[in-house]
Amino acid sequence: MLIIMHSTATQTQISAIIEKADHLGLRAHLSRGFERTVVGVIGDTRPVIRSQFQGMDGVREVVPITKPYKLASREFQPDDTIVPVNHLRFGGDEIAIIAGPCSVEDRTQIIETAHAVKEAGAHALRGGAFKPRTSPYSFQGLGVAGLELLAEAREETGLPIVTEIMSIDMVEIATQYTDVIQIGARNMQNYNLLHAVGESHHPILLKRGLSSTIDELLMSAEYILSHGNRRVMLCERGIRTYETATRNTTDINAIPVLKHRTHLPVILDPSHSTGHWEYVNAIARAGIAAGADGLIIEVHLDPANAASDGDQSLKPEKFAKLVREAKAIAEAVGRSLAPVGELALA
Amino acid sequence: MLIIMHSTATQTQISAIIEKADHLGLRAHLSRGFERTVVGVIGDTRPVIRSQFQGMDGVREVVPITKPYKLASREFQPDDTIVPVNHLRFGGDEIAIIAGPCSVEDRTQIIETAHAVKEAGAHALRGGAFKPRTSPYSFQGLGVAGLELLAEAREETGLPIVTEIMSIDMVEIATQYTDVIQIGARNMQNYNLLHAVGESHHPILLKRGLSSTIDELLMSAEYILSHGNRRVMLCERGIRTYETATRNTTDINAIPVLKHRTHLPVILDPSHSTGHWEYVNAIARAGIAAGADGLIIEVHLDPANAASDGDQSLKPEKFAKLVREAKAIAEAVGRSLAPVGELALA
Amino acid sequence: MLIIMHSTATQTQISAIIEKADHLGLRAHLSRGFERTVVGVIGDTRPVIRSQFQGMDGVREVVPITKPYKLASREFQPDDTIVPVNHLRFGGDEIAIIAGPCSVEDRTQIIETAHAVKEAGAHALRGGAFKPRTSPYSFQGLGVAGLELLAEAREETGLPIVTEIMSIDMVEIATQYTDVIQIGARNMQNYNLLHAVGESHHPILLKRGLSSTIDELLMSAEYILSHGNRRVMLCERGIRTYETATRNTTDINAIPVLKHRTHLPVILDPSHSTGHWEYVNAIARAGIAAGADGLIIEVHLDPANAASDGDQSLKPEKFAKLVREAKAIAEAVGRSLAPVGELALA
Amino acid sequence: MLIIMHSTATQTQISAIIEKADHLGLRAHLSRGFERTVVGVIGDTRPVIRSQFQGMDGVREVVPITKPYKLASREFQPDDTIVPVNHLRFGGDEIAIIAGPCSVEDRTQIIETAHAVKEAGAHALRGGAFKPRTSPYSFQGLGVAGLELLAEAREETGLPIVTEIMSIDMVEIATQYTDVIQIGARNMQNYNLLHAVGESHHPILLKRGLSSTIDELLMSAEYILSHGNRRVMLCERGIRTYETATRNTTDINAIPVLKHRTHLPVILDPSHSTGHWEYVNAIARAGIAAGADGLIIEVHLDPANAASDGDQSLKPEKFAKLVREAKAIAEAVGRSLAPVGELALA
Repeated sequence: MLIIMHSTATQTQISAIIEKADHLGLRAHLSRGFERTVVGVIGDTRPVIRSQFQGMDGVREVVPITKPYKLASREFQPDDTIVPVNHLRFGGDEIAIIAGPCSVEDRTQIIETAHAVKEAGAHALRGGAFKPRTSPYSFQGLGVAGLELLAEAREETGLPIVTEIMSIDMVEIATQYTDVIQIGARNMQNYNLLHAVGESHHPILLKRGLSSTIDELLMSAEYILSHGNRRVMLCERGIRTYETATRNTTDINAIPVLKHRTHLPVILDPSHSTGHWEYVNAIARAGIAAGADGLIIEVHLDPANAASDGDQSLKPEKFAKLVREAKAIAEAVGRSLAPVGELALA
Repeated sequence: MLIIMHSTATQTQISAIIEKADHLGLRAHLSRGFERTVVGVIGDTRPVIRSQFQGMDGVREVVPITKPYKLASREFQPDDTIVPVNHLRFGGDEIAIIAGPCSVEDRTQIIETAHAVKEAGAHALRGGAFKPRTSPYSFQGLGVAGLELLAEAREETGLPIVTEIMSIDMVEIATQYTDVIQIGARNMQNYNLLHAVGESHHPILLKRGLSSTIDELLMSAEYILSHGNRRVMLCERGIRTYETATRNTTDINAIPVLKHRTHLPVILDPSHSTGHWEYVNAIARAGIAAGADGLIIEVHLDPANAASDGDQSLKPEKFAKLVREAKAIAEAVGRSLAPVGELALA
Repeated sequence: MLIIMHSTATQTQISAIIEKADHLGLRAHLSRGFERTVVGVIGDTRPVIRSQFQGMDGVREVVPITKPYKLASREFQPDDTIVPVNHLRFGGDEIAIIAGPCSVEDRTQIIETAHAVKEAGAHALRGGAFKPRTSPYSFQGLGVAGLELLAEAREETGLPIVTEIMSIDMVEIATQYTDVIQIGARNMQNYNLLHAVGESHHPILLKRGLSSTIDELLMSAEYILSHGNRRVMLCERGIRTYETATRNTTDINAIPVLKHRTHLPVILDPSHSTGHWEYVNAIARAGIAAGADGLIIEVHLDPANAASDGDQSLKPEKFAKLVREAKAIAEAVGRSLAPVGELALA
Repeated sequence: MLIIMHSTATQTQISAIIEKADHLGLRAHLSRGFERTVVGVIGDTRPVIRSQFQGMDGVREVVPITKPYKLASREFQPDDTIVPVNHLRFGGDEIAIIAGPCSVEDRTQIIETAHAVKEAGAHALRGGAFKPRTSPYSFQGLGVAGLELLAEAREETGLPIVTEIMSIDMVEIATQYTDVIQIGARNMQNYNLLHAVGESHHPILLKRGLSSTIDELLMSAEYILSHGNRRVMLCERGIRTYETATRNTTDINAIPVLKHRTHLPVILDPSHSTGHWEYVNAIARAGIAAGADGLIIEVHLDPANAASDGDQSLKPEKFAKLVREAKAIAEAVGRSLAPVGELALA
């Protein structure tokens, strides 16, 4: 249920609500927006329980939440969540672009790519150290050595790092080396992992599963939120359909639907959602036009020889064109790209 | 096969190629572009036949077409096809917007809606007279009376008319009353109908089937083209997937894929591809950003009481906002909306 | 609505109901089962209208139908529909097998195949004279000449003929030459065609569309039924999914779902639903085990050189094995294959 | 590559091959069939490496494996794998049925259900102790206490236990308490977990992901096999499609496709693949008819009050009917149900 406080409610009144919830064995989550303060209460919220909060001081009304997701819903928090990542802010008026190779391959590759994407206008660096691969015989990533190279690239360029982890035992080391932990599509319903990153309080980029519904994505976000981590970003990366002309089908509808249902930032990954570099720019533009808060793009210095995902990787010069086009679309919808200058100082 | 002519080839030389093809029992289709003239030849195109054209005067080279679609391919015609509809031109730098109700319901409704969408900036009027309905007990449209009302709306507003037909016996009457014949999603593979409209030389708006691949859409266009009608426009209207948050899944990838594979204009229908009016504007913007040449939008004066598709219909004021947003995105990608003034004189 | 009559209701009482319905501008359809007689009434069935039938002589109760399909529903007719085709009966305890080539190619081919499938145990002969082909340049069938060859094959073997038509103008000729008219997957929602065959009173085999839901299939059956033709058989032929190991995905669930929702016979087409001959027998067995009332199987004397669908066609000896296996499964579920002897005399 | 040995090859010759592979940094897997002995070698298998094995004593031929999966392929091992689970054998001529509740709810429930399914003819007991749930607020299972109750049920009935685990840290405890470890659909591509159970040498039931292809399922099996565990069973449990009449679409085609491509046993889960108890029996029959080696069925004493999956759970008497029907179909395809008597002594 949502306990909506009067605009004049005092801190003491709010604290009393939270204590009451604790006392009843419920979990309370506080949301302070520009226009209202709401206490979300999860647990046994039958009418008989709700009525116990109804008459408390400072309470304007008590309403049940009708969605299966609670903390992720716009009902709970009408204002957009802003996820700060160093000097960067995901989810506000400014649009941020994450770019980099699918896999960290070696020191030269990741450092040079980091410089190249920064120069082209990227705001953060992506790169995989642990790679989920369909075949047990394929390159599985450099592991911790890859994380160290990513940290070195950050040191040199000031770009925050986004990288994927695949199991609970990687959470701690990832929080040391990276700025955003990515949960990949294959792990969107790995609930133990969601629980673990929910306790980490580190920014999370949660990718939609290959055939997950929008509501299942929101339920997976709810796992993270309900374990205390509010820094969750959602990522549309294409869904599996019968169409084979592209690797996946970009569910562009998901962008306005998500912006309608949740306050969390929404990022689009047109590299995976198309699977072909020649369509990436068009879909990146479409994503910004539809309301996305950011992009994540695969860039490789030499796509033909990439260890993975070469077909869908842009060369730096094509990526620079994408940034210029994204800027034009952002302005056409009354937004702007995040500034890049101060990041270098981070 | 494609017979690519020298830039200096004469009309006589080109005619000789076409006569030769006729003589061999093949069908020849001429494509004159800015940079080259090509004769597409359909039929038995084994090497032994190809070699007979090789040495003819004016011929630069003879190449096989590798795609199952020939006349629809960019190989056959590198330049974009422009489909003229009265003063309007679909497929060039200018973007055109078709708008109107799902069904023609009565005289007042269609005339008032025509005025409303024209004032909001629409370039053409849509409206269904023959409605394909899942249930035999649902409203099936006004039939020929609906066509007459559409013609009257054109008379009053100067807007060209787009309307759907569902069987061969409607082709003749439709060519009298409408400016563009729409082939609906359910009939995309009704080959007899495609054959019939292919012989009509009337502009055709061919909608993608509910679960058709992009290549199947192009093959259906090929049916129309191969029967002599070059005035074909393609329409992405969403595909059927497992996701239920929206009525269909807009296959936004299809836009750059189609623009890559074919020279035909590509129109997006965000009303059907989302199924909910609150997502239509975002997806209309995305379509223009991705490269669409036009939009087709359901507009109703009173969506709550529409005879069909009320959920996905915009009120005129929301549609006016869509036109303004489409204009901003068009300019951000270096294009513009088609002018509206001269249409009123048409 | 359904007007359920007392078991003692007289013919006069039933006729009075039908006259009353006519008088009110409604359509009445009579269903006489073993246990009850029901008059289904389609049209304006608001409570005020229902109450006018409530007190009439012989009426036990008047109930609304909750499904969008009425005449196709088990509510309207609890007993299985039996569709007689010459001496053959589709839909009872006996299971019938239709077999033959995808396309009629020439006289020798169809006559020899007819003898071969008859000898192997088939109950009816399939063969396409009008072929819906994705490409306008592919073999489109022999047309009326193909129908004549099919009629000749029937003459020689006594096997009833099943063949597809694709447009209204073929209905009349098809009723002369064939015993069952097939409506193909691409035309499942060609409502004008459904209307036309609904008026023909000829047995119809209605194939499910490539991405149609089960309820959409039932609504298309309702089109035929509502125009007066009760001889409708449904055919599951696989649906389009993301899986590419097979041509389509056999929706085996559709068989018990359809048997639960409708009284119409259900036929399985494992040739199209798998697309590979090596899987046809396994899926044919599964279909009978799941409750199908019949099978339709592609058989070709020389699959490697078939004009169409060679990959999914069985040679006659493999088809003979299929018939033996189908027989064993039929008996395991308490049914049997239809007798073949008397057909030869038909 | 596959190194196929002469039928007269000695153990010493085989050992020499394996040592050679080790020496080259490759992994060797031995497969002894009725007709041939094969050494599968994984790693760098370029022609230059293959030629080094070509001339060794006892080698008949060296062939590359063309499939992305190696150890899982029929090429590597033509004979069916038999997975022994106590006295039970999965994968031979006999068909085994696993049954029980979705979740272990309490002591009485699981013990009574174990007795009920045993009496009805089940060969093994299923029950979830750790439940992957879409909502963080839903019942998540009894955890280790649930495993203890399952072990107690085995003690009482002799039925082997099948239960799901979701993370690496559960592998060790699961090997103590259960006879078969289930990897659920959501974890089919949780590669760390596959790696861990691959090292366990415990029988594994690997469920197909909700939208995984058949080849992706085989690649996930390959992860387990390549880490040394040969006791892998595959489970078709329905895939996600656009059809909403059932919870999932049973991919019945997957059964013959899998039996064609792999030697591993294939189990069908008609409870999840339909989602409605009234369709479970029909699809269970279809699965056996299509060639499945076993079934896994949800049974609950009181489905209306089940903690999870009540809609798709059979009551014991309906399950007893399923066993009788499965037996009849098994016999119709020349197989039989596994004997139940001796299991009680296990």
